[in-house]
Amino acid sequence: MTERVAGVTGARALVETAAAAGVEVCFANPGTTEMPLVTALDEVSAVRPVLGLFEGVCTGAADGYARIAGKPAMTLLHLGPGFANGIANLHNARRANSPVLNVVGDHSSWHLPYDAPLTSDIVSLATPVSGWVGTIDSAARTSEVTVEALAAAMTPPGCGATLIVPADFQQATVTEPLAAVPPPQAPAPFATGRIERIAKRLRDGSRSVLLLGAETLTARGQRAAQRISEATGAKLYSETFPATAERGGGLPDLDRLPYFPEVAVKALADAETVVLAGAQEPVAYFGYAGVPSLLAEPGSVRILAEPGEDGVAALEELAEALGATNASTRRREPDIQDGLPDGPLTPTSIGRIVSALLPENAVVSVEGGTCGYPFFTASAHAARHTTLTNTGGAIGQGLPAALGAAIAAPERQVIALQSDGSAQYTIQALWTMAREQADVVTLIASNRSYSILRTELNRHGGSPSGPASASLTSLDHPPLNWPALAAGYGVPGQRAETGDELARALRQALTAGGPQLIEMVL
Amino acid sequence: MTERVAGVTGARALVETAAAAGVEVCFANPGTTEMPLVTALDEVSAVRPVLGLFEGVCTGAADGYARIAGKPAMTLLHLGPGFANGIANLHNARRANSPVLNVVGDHSSWHLPYDAPLTSDIVSLATPVSGWVGTIDSAARTSEVTVEALAAAMTPPGCGATLIVPADFQQATVTEPLAAVPPPQAPAPFATGRIERIAKRLRDGSRSVLLLGAETLTARGQRAAQRISEATGAKLYSETFPATAERGGGLPDLDRLPYFPEVAVKALADAETVVLAGAQEPVAYFGYAGVPSLLAEPGSVRILAEPGEDGVAALEELAEALGATNASTRRREPDIQDGLPDGPLTPTSIGRIVSALLPENAVVSVEGGTCGYPFFTASAHAARHTTLTNTGGAIGQGLPAALGAAIAAPERQVIALQSDGSAQYTIQALWTMAREQADVVTLIASNRSYSILRTELNRHGGSPSGPASASLTSLDHPPLNWPALAAGYGVPGQRAETGDELARALRQALTAGGPQLIEMVL
Repeated sequence: MTERVAGVTGARALVETAAAAGVEVCFANPGTTEMPLVTALDEVSAVRPVLGLFEGVCTGAADGYARIAGKPAMTLLHLGPGFANGIANLHNARRANSPVLNVVGDHSSWHLPYDAPLTSDIVSLATPVSGWVGTIDSAARTSEVTVEALAAAMTPPGCGATLIVPADFQQATVTEPLAAVPPPQAPAPFATGRIERIAKRLRDGSRSVLLLGAETLTARGQRAAQRISEATGAKLYSETFPATAERGGGLPDLDRLPYFPEVAVKALADAETVVLAGAQEPVAYFGYAGVPSLLAEPGSVRILAEPGEDGVAALEELAEALGATNASTRRREPDIQDGLPDGPLTPTSIGRIVSALLPENAVVSVEGGTCGYPFFTASAHAARHTTLTNTGGAIGQGLPAALGAAIAAPERQVIALQSDGSAQYTIQALWTMAREQADVVTLIASNRSYSILRTELNRHGGSPSGPASASLTSLDHPPLNWPALAAGYGVPGQRAETGDELARALRQALTAGGPQLIEMVL
Repeated sequence: MTERVAGVTGARALVETAAAAGVEVCFANPGTTEMPLVTALDEVSAVRPVLGLFEGVCTGAADGYARIAGKPAMTLLHLGPGFANGIANLHNARRANSPVLNVVGDHSSWHLPYDAPLTSDIVSLATPVSGWVGTIDSAARTSEVTVEALAAAMTPPGCGATLIVPADFQQATVTEPLAAVPPPQAPAPFATGRIERIAKRLRDGSRSVLLLGAETLTARGQRAAQRISEATGAKLYSETFPATAERGGGLPDLDRLPYFPEVAVKALADAETVVLAGAQEPVAYFGYAGVPSLLAEPGSVRILAEPGEDGVAALEELAEALGATNASTRRREPDIQDGLPDGPLTPTSIGRIVSALLPENAVVSVEGGTCGYPFFTASAHAARHTTLTNTGGAIGQGLPAALGAAIAAPERQVIALQSDGSAQYTIQALWTMAREQADVVTLIASNRSYSILRTELNRHGGSPSGPASASLTSLDHPPLNWPALAAGYGVPGQRAETGDELARALRQALTAGGPQLIEMVL
């Protein structure tokens, strides 16, 4: 890089550095303290600004974008409160190990001591959801610190990095050259000694489970896992909420480890060996009295590859070590011999219809239990697709992630299979879908309740019929009118009550292109 | 209190303690880790649960409720991510000194070490917006710690208190009696020596400004300030964004200190003495190069009463010391001799129409610059009403605060005068208005842009017409369809484009009762 003679603003140095590191999109909801950064986006056309009407849309879209593009996404947020609105989806992004660069404006450094109304402790807010947090403390160091943030975000397995930029340093002129952007890092090599030790246990006929994390849920990773399974009898599971997973199109019919801990414990109870390939040791989603937090017998767990290591290569080497070089190639066709189910919609019929009509190479963003599990059951034999799930449990992730996926891969059809309650947290995503004409068909599972909470009330010995319990788990007074909400945001909407209506509406929505919404009345 | 023989759950002890301290409403968006608390709300009917579809609705409503009811409000939120969604409006509540008790469920204490998906550092998230943060560490201490939290929240001037409650302690049986709830505290006495010192300066003919904070913006406080002003020539200002202010109905025509610092500096430049009555020393909202952060000459500021002190009594004593015992009683009538303005809507015509039609004793929640300032100009001579403003600048406050005000005072008409951009952050408030049949008329100032940001771009030397700048400050592709959004949430909606249409729609909405929305097209 050559020395700048005339100089640029610190804000421009930041955006140019991000562009040099491969950042192509900035999901933004800026305010006054980010205006120099907005002006920099005017000048640096390599970074495309995408406006969200709420910050949770921006952070969830950045997560979805990063998962599908395999590239870092940038967000632009307004001081502590604006950042705070993005935390829930940054929590999910953290669990997904998504590389996200959050750029947060702050008051001019000399104005901070006066505790103006918007002054807030951004570091305290950012730390729980960021692998790296830093503040620009001089305009001259802007590019250098931006590189630090991006390097942290992109180091496998990836993380969120939050960069706080006081307004005066955004505006100041810098003449320093851009800092050098380090090349993308390959996944860390795994410890090869593990291969032989694990191969030995599997060869010895130990009853075993192979638990695959997101990074191994590529086609190659799953095929290697399938060979291992066929050679050794190891049972395959995907982690319960993978960041991404390839599915269908002849890939193995891979169950997710069940959500409720009693069932998950049972699924793993038989296993003398639980091999983790890119997955964390499985723990109960919530703690329930009398149910263990660790789902696998502690002595049974063996790590093949940690998240951030090259789990696919590890699986392939393990397969090789086991002599498992050929897998069966049987491919089951979608189970629609008897036609698509008609009659009043049920989660099962929805799963079958959506699976049957899924276009080749679709991305399916799944949020919510009502239709999520039946869809996974039905879709193992659908056309090849990629699923995104809610990795961290902060709801309001499905629509923004679908939006981000559509921005990352405009050539792919995106489906958001979404529970009604969860959709409300970031409903403003529909507007950005309309503005960007994103190819997202949003399917709302409209059961007008927080259904999972009714189940949990029963589990806790309460009752969903108590006055507060009924009121706090019901969404039916008044019912949400989803086609009206969609119209409010510029998205064409329909309502389907039967299987035939859903199939017709979905075919039409897929043909029409652009954002579409279908309320599936349950 | 008598010893409990059978015992109750920790959750119930918490809710009973809150009820004993005067908590009557819980704005809630609970999840799995709060189920025992929901069951406790079934059992303790003194606390009314109000469901929000998004946590920012709950925290903003709690703030609005506390401001109007003068009583603490409770929120019930789900771990770190759920709490995070409420932070923006808790930031505003903190600046308003609103007493809010946030109850946040967490994983069972024994499950926390396993870093399950929803595990998060709630303390780090809560600290920036809470005057008090604590975690229940044994079920037996639940009531005692809840009292600590409530005492902190209710100590004048009031603050947010965040109480984290692991699920196991919610479920455990406690037999301890409820802890004693201390009586509400009166405002702290002010230092009486100040009265004579300030009276002396004002008597000496020093050019002076009296800046009133929210606590002195009652009718009594303003009348005392008016007497002082008439006796000494002191100019009166309200702080720019008061938590509450009584207005109209013969109260003095009190300007707010201007928002932009250059204008505010000019307003204060003349003053040799700036007397603060319940207001903070005025600082620039944002820092701009070449403009001071402190708006008043540093040597000119004199504190009459700090926030949390009895500023009204201080003003009355100051008036007394000045011999200013009688005020003029002239009362100007609303400026509608020439009828209401017709023609295409403008911020000025909207201000005049809304002021003229304001029912006696209304609450007006004002968010956004477009119509906010013209309304304040027009409404000084309207019927008596209470205004709520956005104290902290985290947008998305107006609709939830209006909802909370309506729950606090069901006998009063609430008007939400709301900019379109800001409304989107917590748009889900409309649903709770519909569910609770809250008497809130929402008036959306629909200019389809982040208008303030265009002004700020110009101030920063950028241009609102650059490609990114135009895209990130415009809301018109597609335009939001507000009546459709309202219908989606069960709220009747209309659109008005002229003065006559607005007057007709507003009269009709006020007559109809319950929640109503009018899009005011600008």
